[in-house]
Amino acid sequence: MERFYFDWAATAIPEKDIFEVTGALFPFGNPSSVHSEGKAARQALEDARRRCAQALGVKPEELCYTSGGTESNCIPLFSLLLKPRRDAEKKSAAFLYSAVEHPSIRENAAALGRLGIPCAPIAVEKDGRVSVEKLEKALAKNPSARMAAIMAVNNETGAINDIKALSCLIRKMQKHPIHIHCDAVQVLGKINCNLYDWGVDSASFSAHKIGGGRGCGLLWLKTPITPLYRGGHQEKKIRPGTENTHGAMVLANAMEKYVREPPTVQAEKRMQALFESLQKTDLFIPIPRGRTAVDSRFSPWICQCAFKNRRGKIIPGEVMVRALDEKGFAVSTGSACSSADIKRPVLEAMGIEKELGLGGIRISQGYSTTMEEINLLAGTINTLLNTL
Amino acid sequence: MERFYFDWAATAIPEKDIFEVTGALFPFGNPSSVHSEGKAARQALEDARRRCAQALGVKPEELCYTSGGTESNCIPLFSLLLKPRRDAEKKSAAFLYSAVEHPSIRENAAALGRLGIPCAPIAVEKDGRVSVEKLEKALAKNPSARMAAIMAVNNETGAINDIKALSCLIRKMQKHPIHIHCDAVQVLGKINCNLYDWGVDSASFSAHKIGGGRGCGLLWLKTPITPLYRGGHQEKKIRPGTENTHGAMVLANAMEKYVREPPTVQAEKRMQALFESLQKTDLFIPIPRGRTAVDSRFSPWICQCAFKNRRGKIIPGEVMVRALDEKGFAVSTGSACSSADIKRPVLEAMGIEKELGLGGIRISQGYSTTMEEINLLAGTINTLLNTL
Repeated sequence: MERFYFDWAATAIPEKDIFEVTGALFPFGNPSSVHSEGKAARQALEDARRRCAQALGVKPEELCYTSGGTESNCIPLFSLLLKPRRDAEKKSAAFLYSAVEHPSIRENAAALGRLGIPCAPIAVEKDGRVSVEKLEKALAKNPSARMAAIMAVNNETGAINDIKALSCLIRKMQKHPIHIHCDAVQVLGKINCNLYDWGVDSASFSAHKIGGGRGCGLLWLKTPITPLYRGGHQEKKIRPGTENTHGAMVLANAMEKYVREPPTVQAEKRMQALFESLQKTDLFIPIPRGRTAVDSRFSPWICQCAFKNRRGKIIPGEVMVRALDEKGFAVSTGSACSSADIKRPVLEAMGIEKELGLGGIRISQGYSTTMEEINLLAGTINTLLNTL
Repeated sequence: MERFYFDWAATAIPEKDIFEVTGALFPFGNPSSVHSEGKAARQALEDARRRCAQALGVKPEELCYTSGGTESNCIPLFSLLLKPRRDAEKKSAAFLYSAVEHPSIRENAAALGRLGIPCAPIAVEKDGRVSVEKLEKALAKNPSARMAAIMAVNNETGAINDIKALSCLIRKMQKHPIHIHCDAVQVLGKINCNLYDWGVDSASFSAHKIGGGRGCGLLWLKTPITPLYRGGHQEKKIRPGTENTHGAMVLANAMEKYVREPPTVQAEKRMQALFESLQKTDLFIPIPRGRTAVDSRFSPWICQCAFKNRRGKIIPGEVMVRALDEKGFAVSTGSACSSADIKRPVLEAMGIEKELGLGGIRISQGYSTTMEEINLLAGTINTLLNTL
């Protein structure tokens, strides 16, 4: 059966040309070795770093290769364990994070809490975004927070946070140094971003979300931290372990292709077409309800939505995912990382009523998605609604 | 210039057939996704896990894919942070580790110490091995240790520990449950091992040391632990982050090729030839001095040694590495992971005098090393000794 892939937010379809790197199998040496094979691998790694940095518009020395987005989020978070806290600070949470963060932030906040680092969520508005008002409240309540994490684009809803305005507010309200971390996995290669302009201290990226390989990510560290995990001296001691040279080279290829000028306008056109087709029936419910196709609050690459059947009942997301899969279309419910859960904590945090939340599916498009595929998807959904 | 690679302990030369996996670019889906692409990736991942388990002779459900050897060592170690300690235990170290462990154990012991988890090294004998006597002493001094880490084969000297005897002693002397971890990176595909027979609770493996890809490793967990880092539900919550399906498949290829029946005898023959050629002059000093070529205490894949010049002075390791590199031979001093260091803590722990330690180089061979290459290396070294 012909397949149509609409789960790019979980992982991208890899492209052959991105995976092609120079060399026999690639410079195979250990970049930390001092002989010629090691030096060749070191040069390939540093070339890749320079190319990634150039695509992102940052300095190469600020980029640290990691094993992926989850690890890039964990490294700054767990550095909090090494920061001694004075008694005066103990009434305040040390770590603030938006209530809709990816599990690699949210679940680790719970882990830090168990280790005596109090953490508090920052509430979000109904559209899933952190507002100045909600952030002000969280900051006022937690004057001694040492770290805050707010994601750039939500992986389940596509909600875009105004990172620049929010980090500006954090700097204004907190008198002491505070590390601002941004999970930027769903921004990379999708929407233009200027990391320096955001005013944050660190940001996370994942290679496989833009067509790179698995087991490779980046941590952009403008402000130095002391990491918890130690080992070898690789990546300036921020991330020990033999460097994934091949992964770094492939990521550089993907970033050069997609990060400098993300094809956002094309994604917007396709999302517009999808909404227009789905809105032909009144059975389509965007999540949150007020979202439009081209809406500055949402990434055009991701759409969370639910569907009613002809009897007016919301179709469970799982049923929809399965029915579409049988017709050749890959969509998901929430994050792949929490696909084993029935709960939808991100939608809950937005105040979405339970039935609608459980009806939510995520349609996410990517670089090779075509208008024809969009039309096929919308047509198939509209037909399915008659039978479910 | 033709190159001859003798740094297999740092990283192996990859082989084309090991990297060839089925599928277009490989099952690219996110194994946690529930659609067909996700299921295909899940199946590929579980197939790979089964094949790795079969090669190792363990149950697939005991194997957890990680980003590499360093992470496989970190996961059990940092689970110690989550184990509450009673006051009565506080006079004892919570974590014991052999003084010659890889930096990913040794440096993390220091990190744990700073977080209130006292750690103590287990001294080694002059041959770099943990003896029953030294271990008995460490255990008697630290009756409340909750974890011990003893590596199977040392990465700098090739010293082999009798893991079975040592873990047996640990279980006999410690009355309470103690987690025994074994860094088995340099054993995999090199020397036959029976993990169950060792009597340990966990062991670490790295893919790139046996010709697999970077960014992939295994943690064999016979005894469950609670990991520090959280995130998605991947790998039974032991290692969050999108699974590296491709890396797992390549590792399975490498393990099927080399782990079931490691070509140890061939390595012994070549090591024998190397020793014989080098011993033609009296300028060759194996480290430790009493080591022979085929010596049950040492892996035949790794040889640490130093050389005197014709004036009887020990040649600094760095000089030797550079001189050999210029002639086309890649050897190293210590671990690539600590190549930036001038100190040689592993050799120091063995009581090797400073001058000899700084003269040490590591010659490590691998699957494609030939007898001809061995002869060329020995010949080149013997010629170099006249000029250095």
